[in-house]
Amino acid sequence: MSAPIDRSVERGDGYYIVVEEVKPRVQVYKLVDSKIRFFESIWEIPEGITYNAYVVETDSGFLLIDGWKRGFGGLLVEELGKRGVLSRVTHLIVNHMEPDHSGSIPEILSARPGLKVLGHPLAGRLLRDFYGFAGEFKPVQDGEVFEEGGLRIRFLHAPWLHWPETIVTHVEDLGVVFPCDVLGGYGAYREIFLSEMSEEGRKRYFKLAKMYFANVIGHYRDFVLKSLPKLREAVSKSDVVAPGHGLVLDRGDALEMLSSYEKWIKKESRKIVVVYASMYGFTGEAATRLAKVLEGQGFEVVVYGFNDYERPMVSELVSDAMDAEGLLVAAPAYENQIYPTIRYVLDIIAHKTGCPRVFFLHVYGWGSRVGDARSMLEELKCGVVETLDFKPSTVSSMTDSQIKRVIDFFTRTT
Amino acid sequence: MSAPIDRSVERGDGYYIVVEEVKPRVQVYKLVDSKIRFFESIWEIPEGITYNAYVVETDSGFLLIDGWKRGFGGLLVEELGKRGVLSRVTHLIVNHMEPDHSGSIPEILSARPGLKVLGHPLAGRLLRDFYGFAGEFKPVQDGEVFEEGGLRIRFLHAPWLHWPETIVTHVEDLGVVFPCDVLGGYGAYREIFLSEMSEEGRKRYFKLAKMYFANVIGHYRDFVLKSLPKLREAVSKSDVVAPGHGLVLDRGDALEMLSSYEKWIKKESRKIVVVYASMYGFTGEAATRLAKVLEGQGFEVVVYGFNDYERPMVSELVSDAMDAEGLLVAAPAYENQIYPTIRYVLDIIAHKTGCPRVFFLHVYGWGSRVGDARSMLEELKCGVVETLDFKPSTVSSMTDSQIKRVIDFFTRTT
Repeated sequence: MSAPIDRSVERGDGYYIVVEEVKPRVQVYKLVDSKIRFFESIWEIPEGITYNAYVVETDSGFLLIDGWKRGFGGLLVEELGKRGVLSRVTHLIVNHMEPDHSGSIPEILSARPGLKVLGHPLAGRLLRDFYGFAGEFKPVQDGEVFEEGGLRIRFLHAPWLHWPETIVTHVEDLGVVFPCDVLGGYGAYREIFLSEMSEEGRKRYFKLAKMYFANVIGHYRDFVLKSLPKLREAVSKSDVVAPGHGLVLDRGDALEMLSSYEKWIKKESRKIVVVYASMYGFTGEAATRLAKVLEGQGFEVVVYGFNDYERPMVSELVSDAMDAEGLLVAAPAYENQIYPTIRYVLDIIAHKTGCPRVFFLHVYGWGSRVGDARSMLEELKCGVVETLDFKPSTVSSMTDSQIKRVIDFFTRTT
Repeated sequence: MSAPIDRSVERGDGYYIVVEEVKPRVQVYKLVDSKIRFFESIWEIPEGITYNAYVVETDSGFLLIDGWKRGFGGLLVEELGKRGVLSRVTHLIVNHMEPDHSGSIPEILSARPGLKVLGHPLAGRLLRDFYGFAGEFKPVQDGEVFEEGGLRIRFLHAPWLHWPETIVTHVEDLGVVFPCDVLGGYGAYREIFLSEMSEEGRKRYFKLAKMYFANVIGHYRDFVLKSLPKLREAVSKSDVVAPGHGLVLDRGDALEMLSSYEKWIKKESRKIVVVYASMYGFTGEAATRLAKVLEGQGFEVVVYGFNDYERPMVSELVSDAMDAEGLLVAAPAYENQIYPTIRYVLDIIAHKTGCPRVFFLHVYGWGSRVGDARSMLEELKCGVVETLDFKPSTVSSMTDSQIKRVIDFFTRTT
């Protein structure tokens, strides 16, 4: 009765399709996107990404959970159709409305008009606003149990993870949790399971999952903390966790990743991220010198320098800032303002990860704009802030007391 | 008596050195930098750049005008030394203190301690602040004539082109103007003269010179207009114009470029630049549709789209915005803000080129942030502003009256 499986469909245009069983009665329909360069058109991801739709077989047909990116709906319809699934889908469950998953809804509904759609109450309005949806929509409440074809499906509201109408779908009888984008990761994987990975592959995936978390979910970190007990409970009762991007996790890995989320958000590290921009080297010299000093004090120090030869990936920078207890930011003046790239990057860091502790180094020629830096950090609601400004000629002759100020700033606990 | 010339020194590491006669008694010492990726660590320049120092032979030795980028001072000293110039330099003229030219001053002065330095009065302080300079400095006044080794050299102040202490050095007896960064351009040219170029090469160079102008000098466009008469007068009295970057111009080309500056600044065009960011295509569809409509109305329309596959060069975008009479900006909401890349890019455009006329399209899912867009445009001191917001589903069904609003906005003259 189960639909036939084929491991991978090559398309030769940077996209691949993988359809595979996740466990009996559960299949992943995975669009592997190795062509994308910027997720959300912001985050550099040379590693690519996958969009994971899932099909759950009930006694009366199939549930379709989420879908593919906008523009690939026709392809998803085709894949579901040729496996005999499309005509037997009874319900479409929308875990959230972000168009990298909801983007195929118009084609699905056009192939299967009248299909019942389930989602968070707010998803009903968004379906109309995004796709002019006027079909049958069943809003689901937090904790609501839906029974279909002999299966109990519990829906949990996970507001703002990372959309307001995010829900988690827990197919209790099969022991599978579909946590939406939570517990997802970057990477154009054709593999299905994290458990397929080598030790090195695991590490790489945790890095990509952290990057995804910081980039995409980071701004809603307080909501993540609020939802953690609920997520842990659902995961604990299941065998398999099947997110909207990346690899499928077993219970242990999913719980480990949730604990990592908590650790990252609480910035439980002795890590300092150094971010600098430097046009002619003065600011870079100050920043890298202090980075070495801090390393000598036992901190883990990661340096991101924007200069005339290199532009680091903001996706990685934000990921590193996510769990860093402190930031050392160094920027020159630029046309009587704070250097624009640093304003952009700091804005993103503050928004996505917060900035509880920032030391700001400023190098100026015409006149110091350190006051602007302080206003900017205040506007970004950064916590403890100190600043230091240098004329270029004094960068190389930084005094012991200046260096001590920086060390003290990061070592004292208040 | 003239120093020996060799056309090009290959270094094989992305840098080249070209030393050549510009006209009798005037030589260019050119560091060709094809390795740089981001000028000022901001502007994408796959074309590279040159740093042009000049040597003028007088009856009593040599004047050295400007120098090379910080980090290459030792190399400049070597090149001057092996041609017998270094030991006979009598004066160093600092047209401005930006470290892509002044960065070699420490090495020059260390090889030739006691060398007299001439520059704008403010350059004296900046020499101390950048390099701890404590030598002999002669401040020059606007219009001051300096006589040395039988040559009359007139200095003109060109404040804020693009540094506060910019001067133009006019060696009247030789008919050469050294206009600092004004009239410079990008491009890792080993050629010396614009007149060496083919018709196509000329066009390319004017494009690179415009990009350099918009990127580097654009913010000070009002000061450019103020200095234009002075610059035109000096250029008119000379044969050769030798800027700090790019190619050496003859009088006609220099005057043409100054006229172009004026045209660009005054936005004398029927050009509209469309800038959009789009995560899943909705905003991009709205923007490109309206771009076509405006093209149909006879406008020259240039489209820059930030999406998940492409990130346009901000250097080019700012160059195109420089002379565009209008901007059509389209941005989605992102986590209840205006999309960050658009905020960054608009900030740069407003700063560098101004934004007298902006139509802002906004596409939103959760809730419209068009009010934020209006505040942002006001803060950026944009002139005439109109906005329109769409839900994603209404992008494809844009009404005639909405389209008419956009056309009217750009066609009416007030």
